[in-house]
Amino acid sequence: MSTDIRIKPAMRPYLAATRRFASGDDNPREFLERCLKELDWWEPQIGAFVNLNLPAARAAADQATARWRDRKPRSPIDGIPMGIKDMIETADMPTELGSPLFEDWRSWKDAASVVALRAAGAVILGKTVTTEFAMSYPRGTRNPWNFDHTPGGSSSGSAAAVAAGIISAGLGTQVLGSTLRPASFCGVYGYKPSVHALNRTGSHDYQSQSCTGILAASLEDTWQVAYEIVTRAGGDPGWPGLVGPDRAPAAKKPRRLAFVETAGWAVADAPTKQCMEAALKRIQTAGVEVLTRTTHAIVDAIEPDLAGALDLSMRINDFEMRSLIQSCADRDIEKLSPVIRERIPKATALTLADYRGDLATRDEIRAAYAELAADCDGCVTLGSVGPAPKGLESTGVTLMNVPASLLGIPALTLPVFSVDGMPLGLQVMGFADRDADLFGIAAWLRDLL
Amino acid sequence: MSTDIRIKPAMRPYLAATRRFASGDDNPREFLERCLKELDWWEPQIGAFVNLNLPAARAAADQATARWRDRKPRSPIDGIPMGIKDMIETADMPTELGSPLFEDWRSWKDAASVVALRAAGAVILGKTVTTEFAMSYPRGTRNPWNFDHTPGGSSSGSAAAVAAGIISAGLGTQVLGSTLRPASFCGVYGYKPSVHALNRTGSHDYQSQSCTGILAASLEDTWQVAYEIVTRAGGDPGWPGLVGPDRAPAAKKPRRLAFVETAGWAVADAPTKQCMEAALKRIQTAGVEVLTRTTHAIVDAIEPDLAGALDLSMRINDFEMRSLIQSCADRDIEKLSPVIRERIPKATALTLADYRGDLATRDEIRAAYAELAADCDGCVTLGSVGPAPKGLESTGVTLMNVPASLLGIPALTLPVFSVDGMPLGLQVMGFADRDADLFGIAAWLRDLL
Repeated sequence: MSTDIRIKPAMRPYLAATRRFASGDDNPREFLERCLKELDWWEPQIGAFVNLNLPAARAAADQATARWRDRKPRSPIDGIPMGIKDMIETADMPTELGSPLFEDWRSWKDAASVVALRAAGAVILGKTVTTEFAMSYPRGTRNPWNFDHTPGGSSSGSAAAVAAGIISAGLGTQVLGSTLRPASFCGVYGYKPSVHALNRTGSHDYQSQSCTGILAASLEDTWQVAYEIVTRAGGDPGWPGLVGPDRAPAAKKPRRLAFVETAGWAVADAPTKQCMEAALKRIQTAGVEVLTRTTHAIVDAIEPDLAGALDLSMRINDFEMRSLIQSCADRDIEKLSPVIRERIPKATALTLADYRGDLATRDEIRAAYAELAADCDGCVTLGSVGPAPKGLESTGVTLMNVPASLLGIPALTLPVFSVDGMPLGLQVMGFADRDADLFGIAAWLRDLL
Repeated sequence: MSTDIRIKPAMRPYLAATRRFASGDDNPREFLERCLKELDWWEPQIGAFVNLNLPAARAAADQATARWRDRKPRSPIDGIPMGIKDMIETADMPTELGSPLFEDWRSWKDAASVVALRAAGAVILGKTVTTEFAMSYPRGTRNPWNFDHTPGGSSSGSAAAVAAGIISAGLGTQVLGSTLRPASFCGVYGYKPSVHALNRTGSHDYQSQSCTGILAASLEDTWQVAYEIVTRAGGDPGWPGLVGPDRAPAAKKPRRLAFVETAGWAVADAPTKQCMEAALKRIQTAGVEVLTRTTHAIVDAIEPDLAGALDLSMRINDFEMRSLIQSCADRDIEKLSPVIRERIPKATALTLADYRGDLATRDEIRAAYAELAADCDGCVTLGSVGPAPKGLESTGVTLMNVPASLLGIPALTLPVFSVDGMPLGLQVMGFADRDADLFGIAAWLRDLL
């Protein structure tokens, strides 16, 4: 009898595994059962899921198995085990929004992204934990790399479950740093698309800079999940949606990159900064010039805007969330977390004129950042100011991740660093509506680092 | 004992009535009780409501009464009796979306517009009938001017209830003609705002050209309801929202107007056309030049675009609605109407490239229409191709109303015509994000006609 000793969690990429499906050496049901073994072991420790529907998952995996056997998969990810952040509606499970006010609430329909994923053959295991309304109040998920540490938030459950190998990919959302930061803390790939690139209908994040994000076990899985969503559901209604090829873009060496500090660099710890500095050195050694605030005027000019991203984003979010919060407070204010209750007076005090001013400021900052595209192909920075901090009462500092949200640009977290045995991500930021270019650069960086 | 004989329904404007509130000669509770008398009489005949919450309405009216007595109303419409189209979420009542698939479904929260209206003191009587998913399949509401005739749709219940004097205003939605057409058929004011001008969060019309519309008993009530929503909830997240004064804009004589035929003029009946021709004559006699396709190159150039508005809008809607319809079909396709079931193959066949092409075409048409603003202050046309047709199996022809939806512009229906004892509206169309200007012209037209 062997004892099941596990040193560290291991991700479970899906696309790579499908190569063995056609021959029958492996199949989606077998793949799922391996995932469910991980679920049995990890879930009691990490609490990544709010609700599960394993009978439906097994049935879906059996159908995918039959399609692969018949060499008629619905998509390259037919059969992929996935989790859906509990902000996003599913017909077969409750959508609880991380709030006791929505315990067992049901939408009776799937969100557009979920309809698309099911049509592509995705096997949906369950709903993954979100902080309260995808804001800051955590709901108990633990980091699989160290159970005393936060997995980050707000897409806590999807990040933790992908890291633990329970699912190959999970949907998240991001309005500040809710996809990129947990990806960094849990050591998985995290993708925040260009704003409006993936259809959010049926996702309860109503803010203007929020996005449906993807957490996944490989860069190729990440792209493919996004592609299968957009090709069926489009982007947000009225927007053209994610543009790019039907398979993950190949690695492409960038002309130049910029290193941006954001407000996070000043508070990042020393070993974390050393990771970044080592990466920058390797990038330069590979022959790619790195622009910085000391060497490049536009980088220098936008750094103060990036440093102010959190304050501006919070004001915009407060205005955009206040109707929901008011409605919840009218039902039972005691069931809102203290952190939300404290924000109510500030949100109520905002006028429509304040909001219009903040939107105009955001537009200006976006235009200023876009000018950088003439001189470089993207920006790099840390995925977080350090590895996941100890404690479950906070989901950590998000300063590094808000600029991409404010700018409406695509960004990726790549799990390439490690500090004291905890994972840490490199963040790569692109330019609006050029998500495919970003994936090409990211693949090059992943291969390099 | 007197017999309650009614010749015709009568609207019940609210703002005008509030003048007597300060003195105590009247109050919101008394106003509501008069509405509830109409409800008792009319509702069994017309079926305008899906669900009612009269205890909550009476309690809200009492609170508004106390505020007016203390001379501290929350807004000029504090106490206004309203109905909410059953596409829009309410915490205290189900939201059934006009579909048996959502019978008794509850959102557990208010839509942003409803939160705003409650904060302004609105008294919400109930949820008004919508066609299935605000599309074409009717749900039995009758026209208060003749019970054998349709009230139009999809905002059937709000239009009928305002016409019958049960409520002073109702929320609707419009993606094709769902606010403007029922307003014309029922003889009430109908307002379709500029796209994105009023926050749709919590309204289940996910399409890119859909809007929260208002049906009301006066032009002043219409504006005030819109203003009270936007000042608290803003426009759609990320958009500046409706711009304009805190009271209805005063009547303003336009420089010039354009008469547009749209695809509707060719199929309008003769008495209906005579109404329009008489109105155009009176406008010209008042000294306002009217441009037409025979006298003005831009009008002539855009008429074919307006004539094609329905086809293009339907393709865009089909793509944007297909995730929802698919999810419903997965639950129980038999509970979808035949008209929706028939659309599924067409919607499924659309590619993302088709959709992107349609959006680009729409952008071009919007740009072409915007050029007209240099030469005139707005357009006039019929509110519908005729008065409400007999029969409840269809909500009537919407050709006249789709151009405003496709163009994303504000439009109003004014109840100024009558054909054989049935009401008929004049439609006034403005330019994008200049809703206040449209209200000024509309007030001038209302006073003139």
